[in-house]
Amino acid sequence: MSDTDEAQPFTEMVNAGLEFTIPVAHGMGVRAIEVRPGFAATEVPIEGNGNHFGVMYAGVLFTVAEILGGAISIATFDTSTYYPLVRDLQIAFRKPAKTNVRASATLAEDTIATVTREAAAHGKADFVLDAELTDADGVVVATTHGLYQLRTYGS
Amino acid sequence: MSDTDEAQPFTEMVNAGLEFTIPVAHGMGVRAIEVRPGFAATEVPIEGNGNHFGVMYAGVLFTVAEILGGAISIATFDTSTYYPLVRDLQIAFRKPAKTNVRASATLAEDTIATVTREAAAHGKADFVLDAELTDADGVVVATTHGLYQLRTYGS
Repeated sequence: MSDTDEAQPFTEMVNAGLEFTIPVAHGMGVRAIEVRPGFAATEVPIEGNGNHFGVMYAGVLFTVAEILGGAISIATFDTSTYYPLVRDLQIAFRKPAKTNVRASATLAEDTIATVTREAAAHGKADFVLDAELTDADGVVVATTHGLYQLRTYGS
Repeated sequence: MSDTDEAQPFTEMVNAGLEFTIPVAHGMGVRAIEVRPGFAATEVPIEGNGNHFGVMYAGVLFTVAEILGGAISIATFDTSTYYPLVRDLQIAFRKPAKTNVRASATLAEDTIATVTREAAAHGKADFVLDAELTDADGVVVATTHGLYQLRTYGS
């Protein structure tokens, strides 16, 4: 089994759950492309998500990037013990997006180790996720800087 | 005619247009409550907009606040000459929202005068809009800090 095959279950898990976990995002057509420990990529179609200027609406760009925090957590942290939530997110709109948009973000190994240690010690831990959003030509249409938190269930 | 009656046309204009200008926001049930020069308030229902924790999804909170920039512009600036676009938006999530959510923002008179002057002189002008989002009990569930720009059509 290749690394890609091994990673596939997380991608499928996110996509199978999205309709029930975040119906609004599912309704936009957001889906996970690749989810593995330390990495997540998502995509959203332009169809149905444009505005009157013919470009993707800002709230759709927000959503395809925001869900990376939940997706990457599923593959990276112990989500049987901790759930992720978004605390603060900044999005910079760089260029109008006229095509499907892909978002991706990475968590470095040392960050993962620190967050895992802190969550075990305190029952919660913050982590920062920087995402890049690109159109079908690879042009960066937006970037996000998000602050998330892992929390023990019930806290 | 009272001030409220005079202001009503802008509110209706935003609501009548939303289905065509931003179908995604219309689909969430976002609507304008009050739009007049220097002020805009919007609302979104919790129905259909929750996540698996039973609270309003972050992307819905983003949207109900983000559209204030367009709504307030329609009542405040010459939108026959300039269109508004969002350049950057930061949203801080304070409390989980379990009810309908209202967002509102104000532009001070001196800010409006400055933006109007700058747009006339340069064909574009930036403006900052700070919004507060409250639940049905008046609890602040999120705040946003948005940077918008007025631009001459075609630029």
